[in-house]
Amino acid sequence: MTDVAAYMEGLGRMAREAAPAMARAATGAKNAALSATADLLLAHTAELQDANGKDVADARAAGLDDALIDRLVLTAERIAQMARGLREIAALPDPIGEITGLAARPSGIQVGRMRVPLGVIGIIYESRPNVTADAAGLCLKSGNAVILRGGSEALHSNAAIGRCLKEGLAAAGLPSGAVGLVETADRAAVTELLHMNRFVDLLVPRGGKGLVELVATEARMPVLKHLHGVCHVYLDDDADAAKAQAVAVNAKTQRYGVCNTMETLLVAESRADALLPPLARAYKEHGVELRGCAKTRDRIAWAHAATDQDWEAEYLAPILAIRVVAGLDEAIAHIARYGSHHTDAIVTENWTHAQRFLREVDSSSVMVNASTRFADGFEYGLGAEIGISTDKFHARGPVGLEGLTSQKFVVWGDGHIRR
Amino acid sequence: MTDVAAYMEGLGRMAREAAPAMARAATGAKNAALSATADLLLAHTAELQDANGKDVADARAAGLDDALIDRLVLTAERIAQMARGLREIAALPDPIGEITGLAARPSGIQVGRMRVPLGVIGIIYESRPNVTADAAGLCLKSGNAVILRGGSEALHSNAAIGRCLKEGLAAAGLPSGAVGLVETADRAAVTELLHMNRFVDLLVPRGGKGLVELVATEARMPVLKHLHGVCHVYLDDDADAAKAQAVAVNAKTQRYGVCNTMETLLVAESRADALLPPLARAYKEHGVELRGCAKTRDRIAWAHAATDQDWEAEYLAPILAIRVVAGLDEAIAHIARYGSHHTDAIVTENWTHAQRFLREVDSSSVMVNASTRFADGFEYGLGAEIGISTDKFHARGPVGLEGLTSQKFVVWGDGHIRR
Repeated sequence: MTDVAAYMEGLGRMAREAAPAMARAATGAKNAALSATADLLLAHTAELQDANGKDVADARAAGLDDALIDRLVLTAERIAQMARGLREIAALPDPIGEITGLAARPSGIQVGRMRVPLGVIGIIYESRPNVTADAAGLCLKSGNAVILRGGSEALHSNAAIGRCLKEGLAAAGLPSGAVGLVETADRAAVTELLHMNRFVDLLVPRGGKGLVELVATEARMPVLKHLHGVCHVYLDDDADAAKAQAVAVNAKTQRYGVCNTMETLLVAESRADALLPPLARAYKEHGVELRGCAKTRDRIAWAHAATDQDWEAEYLAPILAIRVVAGLDEAIAHIARYGSHHTDAIVTENWTHAQRFLREVDSSSVMVNASTRFADGFEYGLGAEIGISTDKFHARGPVGLEGLTSQKFVVWGDGHIRR
Repeated sequence: MTDVAAYMEGLGRMAREAAPAMARAATGAKNAALSATADLLLAHTAELQDANGKDVADARAAGLDDALIDRLVLTAERIAQMARGLREIAALPDPIGEITGLAARPSGIQVGRMRVPLGVIGIIYESRPNVTADAAGLCLKSGNAVILRGGSEALHSNAAIGRCLKEGLAAAGLPSGAVGLVETADRAAVTELLHMNRFVDLLVPRGGKGLVELVATEARMPVLKHLHGVCHVYLDDDADAAKAQAVAVNAKTQRYGVCNTMETLLVAESRADALLPPLARAYKEHGVELRGCAKTRDRIAWAHAATDQDWEAEYLAPILAIRVVAGLDEAIAHIARYGSHHTDAIVTENWTHAQRFLREVDSSSVMVNASTRFADGFEYGLGAEIGISTDKFHARGPVGLEGLTSQKFVVWGDGHIRR
């Protein structure tokens, strides 16, 4: 066994051993650990910034670009935000131990389901050090142990945050081994983590497409993954013009670089003359480049011609593809063919069209008369999210505490036997 | 591409194309397809038995053993049972389309979850041809398409049942491609199926350990798997003697060859003198061989000495391992170390001990004062089960229709935009 393999096995074993204590921990103890960590982050602001300063200096020396360095920097405000985030997680209801559906069966036994932690969660993420606190907070609150492998450029920052988490756990009488931090930049540590299915019950990759695809392909345990978001808004024959304008502008322009932003607008042909010109004016004001089908360009002279690649593109930028479709069937077919099963919305006043869209569009979030930008754990009331799943299995869409749990059956009897 | 690869790709594409029509199918149409199939199975009893006769003759010629041939034979009664099974599935509530938790958010949108099918389910199973009808029925009722790969020794029988399923679908106006039957004995077809993650959303292996391990290791999509059942009953310090006797005898002797049968009995030392001798008499009457720890053998002279392997054994036979433990903590620790996270029960009158056992034992079913033999989809009220999951992700324990579904978010607005 290599040194890295032995090191990772040690982290895995420590997390696995801490998991039962976390699973049975009282809500008060878990909340106390999160609050104590928040206090420690604030008390150690200067030390965190020192550690972060080393990472930033290394990153500058290595010639990393400004955007990446900006994500890396821990300002006092960002540290305070981490602390607030942990207190918000502490304030969320504890999902663990909840029993649902308990009901008597003809045999006389009562059967229900109890919500339980998954065990050990592995998180693999990139540059932002605040993920260390946010992700660990969600895993601990849901009764899990966690192994964190952050970006190598944030090694010192993450280690300093990790020390606060461990100290916070100890202060609450919980095992500090419930947080394991991978404190080596060696890429082999990631490979080990991906293969440690005897220690890790779920992996959550948070980062670019390359990272997510690597984890999805190589991991020997379930992966909660988010691949990409090619989100649509369809303006139906029966769309209200004001709602169409509001939703289609907001879904594209409220923020560009995020996965729930609309990338393709579909417009029913019967409404193209009425709806496209005012939309084009709004997009022009926002500096959005338009790429349209021939029928779109008939109505918007300055739009570029869209190619087949545009229907599949996740621009994450002020660019929008627009297609005029015959109606609902063609819109649903377009989304099925080119979409990414992330978030799609219809704008319509027609009850039957809305119902068909809700039922037939196979995406993790399906919306009527609302902006795709609402697809978010906070907006959905999940409290905070560990990620957004574009898979169907276990969890779809924004994933909060509940996605880090499972349910077991509980059976209550009085000496019942099976006949 | 080999012939088998092309053949399997054809099946995969057909199922994938049929999936949207199944997903939006009305409950009535799905039920009509199941009823029509039941009628067809009965109407074609003679043809099914002819096809089955070829399989049985081939199996005899190949020298397969009697137990296997018995599982293979389709009697008129077994065909009638398949038809009844399909009608029972038709009578179950349709999980698809159910919306739960719909509630307003501060932004004004309403957010809920809609239950939706997974898409295409692959089932890989061994000799019993009735699985073809049972598993297909559950997949279709839950709005999925299905690809079935049965045992090669049941090829003709499965093909005949498959024709009834396809005809039943067509009679109800649903796509017959929603049932794909692998009609080749070539093992390469299984390998293709395991790698077809672009067509298959979930694989369910049903069969021996070898099959399940092969599928779990090789599959490129999620697998709903059942590995093994090492189930425990713990007789606590505060166990009621009559309940202890009833549960411990039933959990072992009601049926031997099934996964929810008790394999190890744990007894609190304070009660060993009182509880073990009458239990030993009952087990002797049932012809159960006992293998005990030293303290067990002090109380049951005729018990064999247990080794460490006995604590891990899934006997599936009239053999029982017995260990005397200091109390609840040691019982929980024993189950954590040697158990298989399947089903474990405590017999106790003590509220706190019961609560701790329910919370701390990490098994798919945890029971108080009830026989482990109750761990079953029918007993739990799930209607029928596609299998029992010993994993934690997505589904634990007996898996019915709901385990073949997922939930997407639905968002209802009135032109709402994100600020």
